[in-house]
Amino acid sequence: MPKTHVDLAPLRVGKGRRPRLDRRDPGDDLGLDRDDEADILADLTERLERQQGLLAASRRSLLAVFQGVDAAGKDGVIKALGHAMQPMLIHLRGFSTPTKPELAHDYLWRVHQETPEKGRMSLFNRSHYEDVLVVRVDELVPRDVWEPRFEQINRFEQFLTDNGTTIVKFMLHVSPDEQLERLRERVHNPIKRWKHNPDDYARRAQWDEYAEAYEDAIRRTSRPDAPWLIVPADRKWVRNIVVMQAIAEALEGMDLAEPPLPEDLPEELRHAPAP
Amino acid sequence: MPKTHVDLAPLRVGKGRRPRLDRRDPGDDLGLDRDDEADILADLTERLERQQGLLAASRRSLLAVFQGVDAAGKDGVIKALGHAMQPMLIHLRGFSTPTKPELAHDYLWRVHQETPEKGRMSLFNRSHYEDVLVVRVDELVPRDVWEPRFEQINRFEQFLTDNGTTIVKFMLHVSPDEQLERLRERVHNPIKRWKHNPDDYARRAQWDEYAEAYEDAIRRTSRPDAPWLIVPADRKWVRNIVVMQAIAEALEGMDLAEPPLPEDLPEELRHAPAP
Repeated sequence: MPKTHVDLAPLRVGKGRRPRLDRRDPGDDLGLDRDDEADILADLTERLERQQGLLAASRRSLLAVFQGVDAAGKDGVIKALGHAMQPMLIHLRGFSTPTKPELAHDYLWRVHQETPEKGRMSLFNRSHYEDVLVVRVDELVPRDVWEPRFEQINRFEQFLTDNGTTIVKFMLHVSPDEQLERLRERVHNPIKRWKHNPDDYARRAQWDEYAEAYEDAIRRTSRPDAPWLIVPADRKWVRNIVVMQAIAEALEGMDLAEPPLPEDLPEELRHAPAP
Repeated sequence: MPKTHVDLAPLRVGKGRRPRLDRRDPGDDLGLDRDDEADILADLTERLERQQGLLAASRRSLLAVFQGVDAAGKDGVIKALGHAMQPMLIHLRGFSTPTKPELAHDYLWRVHQETPEKGRMSLFNRSHYEDVLVVRVDELVPRDVWEPRFEQINRFEQFLTDNGTTIVKFMLHVSPDEQLERLRERVHNPIKRWKHNPDDYARRAQWDEYAEAYEDAIRRTSRPDAPWLIVPADRKWVRNIVVMQAIAEALEGMDLAEPPLPEDLPEELRHAPAP
């Protein structure tokens, strides 16, 4: 029997546990066979479409956070998700270097504004986690400023959860070799060249510092109701299946009900159309 | 030889010309054969991906406006476009009933804020045209307020064009029968039920007033550099092909150049990856 379902449990980081990125293989195919990809995607698309329709009729919402080094595949997986769902119900937001007005506020100010409306989902391409990642590695603020942020982030996310937002956080885990291939592709493919940024290559010298910062951030902010998943991301198709399945499961776990048939329908709308 | 290309000229409304919606068939297949759909979409997707990559490297932008009665397929065609492109480069915005802060400003204030960044595209699901459509039909303001708006809109769009934004405007043209089918589908399919709005059905009583308002709006605001296209929209697959092709052609008409190979590349990035 073909394997059409990934066991996500080993990818999920338990509360207070170290993710141990060094012991995880970014090239892992999780036992999936690429010949099954189309079938798996068709099934996940159907599940996601259904859940998105039920979510839209509810007062709940979903927030998915995507983190990872440059070229880890954040844009790519968001594209795959977009293809499985109705984009008008999805709010996309990329968080790059803060603007002046953003810097004039606390670091969660710009993030809070982009949290999902009820019935919708927000996908964050980078997030408030940059404030304990790049900010820490590049020493943009001292340790006694970034260190308390883990707890602040936990409380902020807890507040969102308490108010109806389900949160899932993905760390896209690529190998340095795969990253280099992708950075070269960006330079040499004219239609990807807009993505080229010399800083991305330069940041490879800080690979270990980033790994350490990710280790800490994930260990200190993975909670049962807002878990981190470490996604093996060297193979784009595996990455897409893992993320789509995790979001489908998160939505299914919300037990969203089918909205009731509206009352007082005019005669012409009362009968179901022929199938 | 299969027909893989639509002649868009007859769908484009000339400056000052009446669109004559009553003489256009919303069920027109434009001579396309559904057996060719997959091939046509594959070709359009490739063209759109390429153009989107070149646009992202440029200082230009594109704005596409989608108008049409309820259930005309605005969400659907935006979904189809999203599937052909990278969603992180697309700004989606739906314009529904204005909020209090929006009403406290002129009607173009909220619209201007959503125009595309350089290198990006914005897709408007409804737009400033509602201010000469529903506002006129429901007499929310008197004629001497909405009548001058055609010229105001022309000047506003001209300003955007002069500053590098290419504009394309689509009127999705459905028949009353097809609309009724779709409204029934929304009621009876639980995963589409969130879209049901009793007002949509009620507005069918104003079909002719809306047609007249569309006739005027299109005639008075279709210009060579910001044309209106009347899209036969009873068949979703025809509608998608027309809109995707029109946007591909609009982008190709901008003559976007491939960005040059970056200079001063580190050794590891200097050679193209193996194909």
